[in-house]
Amino acid sequence: MKPKFRGIQTATLITLTVMLTACAVKQTAPDPLPSWSEGHSKQQIIEFVNSVTKTGGVDYVAPGQRIATFDNDGTLWSEQPTYFQLLFILDRIKQMAADHPEWTSTQPFQAVLENDMAAIEAAGHHGMAQLGMTAQSGVTTDEFKTIINDWFATARHPTTGKAYNAMVYQPMLEVLDYLRTNEFKVFIVSGGGLEFMRPWSEEVYGIPPDQVVGSSMETRYEVQAGNPVLVQEPGLHFINDKDTKPVAINRYIGQRPILAFGNSDGDFQMLEWTTAGEGRRLGLIVHHTDAEREWAYDRQSSIGRLDRGLDEAEMRGWVLVDMARDWQVIYPYQLEK
Amino acid sequence: MKPKFRGIQTATLITLTVMLTACAVKQTAPDPLPSWSEGHSKQQIIEFVNSVTKTGGVDYVAPGQRIATFDNDGTLWSEQPTYFQLLFILDRIKQMAADHPEWTSTQPFQAVLENDMAAIEAAGHHGMAQLGMTAQSGVTTDEFKTIINDWFATARHPTTGKAYNAMVYQPMLEVLDYLRTNEFKVFIVSGGGLEFMRPWSEEVYGIPPDQVVGSSMETRYEVQAGNPVLVQEPGLHFINDKDTKPVAINRYIGQRPILAFGNSDGDFQMLEWTTAGEGRRLGLIVHHTDAEREWAYDRQSSIGRLDRGLDEAEMRGWVLVDMARDWQVIYPYQLEK
Repeated sequence: MKPKFRGIQTATLITLTVMLTACAVKQTAPDPLPSWSEGHSKQQIIEFVNSVTKTGGVDYVAPGQRIATFDNDGTLWSEQPTYFQLLFILDRIKQMAADHPEWTSTQPFQAVLENDMAAIEAAGHHGMAQLGMTAQSGVTTDEFKTIINDWFATARHPTTGKAYNAMVYQPMLEVLDYLRTNEFKVFIVSGGGLEFMRPWSEEVYGIPPDQVVGSSMETRYEVQAGNPVLVQEPGLHFINDKDTKPVAINRYIGQRPILAFGNSDGDFQMLEWTTAGEGRRLGLIVHHTDAEREWAYDRQSSIGRLDRGLDEAEMRGWVLVDMARDWQVIYPYQLEK
Repeated sequence: MKPKFRGIQTATLITLTVMLTACAVKQTAPDPLPSWSEGHSKQQIIEFVNSVTKTGGVDYVAPGQRIATFDNDGTLWSEQPTYFQLLFILDRIKQMAADHPEWTSTQPFQAVLENDMAAIEAAGHHGMAQLGMTAQSGVTTDEFKTIINDWFATARHPTTGKAYNAMVYQPMLEVLDYLRTNEFKVFIVSGGGLEFMRPWSEEVYGIPPDQVVGSSMETRYEVQAGNPVLVQEPGLHFINDKDTKPVAINRYIGQRPILAFGNSDGDFQMLEWTTAGEGRRLGLIVHHTDAEREWAYDRQSSIGRLDRGLDEAEMRGWVLVDMARDWQVIYPYQLEK
């Protein structure tokens, strides 16, 4: 085949290439956070990323040290009417009830089978732990992964009717992408269970399993008929909340983050630990102010209570993201309209 | 400036480019494991990597699932005359002794100050734990990092006279690089302490802190005069050895490795767990057979004992790397001659 541009001189080609390159540079970069309204919150995020990635700048941080940590419940996805993992636990108890006829008259199981939320809450921490242990132990990690995948595939949120992991925040997905594009290593640091989040964290958040830090149960290695398995035991290994979040960050990540994003007082110490480090740091809090499109709650809520963080955010230079004001859209499925 | 090649026709340039590209492809790829002797071990590693990275091949594994785990002591660096972390602990006890005059007559401290290894060993697990807790607690994680960095900068191995972290294995550094080049995510899964390995793992092994899994102590978050710190407590949080290695792999990494490399029976379950997974897997054991250039030990050794692994490697299809036969060089500093 005869190339049609045979007659074009090399110098001409070079000139064309230079012109095309110049054009590309002149184009305005696309907005990295299109679902964020213009304003203080968006500006703070972009300015921070620009400052720590500017080679030779005073705030420059090498890529390997660009660690960002995100709470999950209420920060990356919704947590109302209660934590989604608790809703999973209740569903799983109901599913298991066929093999446990005694539960119809034994608390806290009876309360679950009767959908009696007041009685479940009345069972307190001990009752809740009993439900969690029962629903999540006695199976191998592989079996539990299947149980989790099945639940997300079939369970639907009581208000939106959507799959629970469709109720992640579109603006936060954009933040995760924006940070990764700028060579941040992004971690979840959640009070939720490791085994509850990891089966879908990569697909939904782009966060691989080893970058998910959470609460965990005891597991036991055993060889069953020549086949090694990890069995989930009815005991808590670690609860990742409040002052144990910096402990977990140190244990799992081994570096202090330069950016941390939370939504409740359970994230207070993570933000404190992050922003007390040397050099430029950024702490951010999602403030649930949007009763119409999501939920509005803070100081008085038993779920995702935000009280001290609300008092001290300004003094500490943390960005309070006002969901109603700062987010143009809440969930990804709202974009598809 | 007048380009000298102005007169060359585009078609000629294209032809030249095609020819140059063809030449490049024809060149033999450089040996990825130059310090490995030709033979079964090297061949097994290369064949495995080729098979799991071959797009469309029956053994293909997506990059995100190319997880490889490496033991540290005796697998990535030497562990004789005893674990290097124990030598650090003994040095640190001596350093702390000035503030503890009572130690001159209190065991097991007295034994350390008198360099009485027999008495130290006689103190058993309890004595060893007491030394480890004393040497590694009561400081913040930041302070401890400085202590570790100072030790590696100044302490020298009794036989080689080299810094301890210069005694890493050149052939293993090549394996780490080779795997990373092929989009593996490489983790250390060691019985050694997290805080002992992480300060230098990236510089020496190219493994970032969050990809180092190890044993860990309890840590406590506290705010000291407005400054948040993590204080190392005198309690063990987790011992990463034998059947808890698969537990830690699940907890920290969240995926089953497709390749695992160890050297002792402490790695048996890690290799068992790894190679029992579906699809092509590779388990490898460094067998210390080189009394001249390194050390020779296996079944009878109290350090890095390899007994069951030696019996079962062949049956399980694990590769026994014979250090004397398979490695042309042991340490990187031997290359610099």
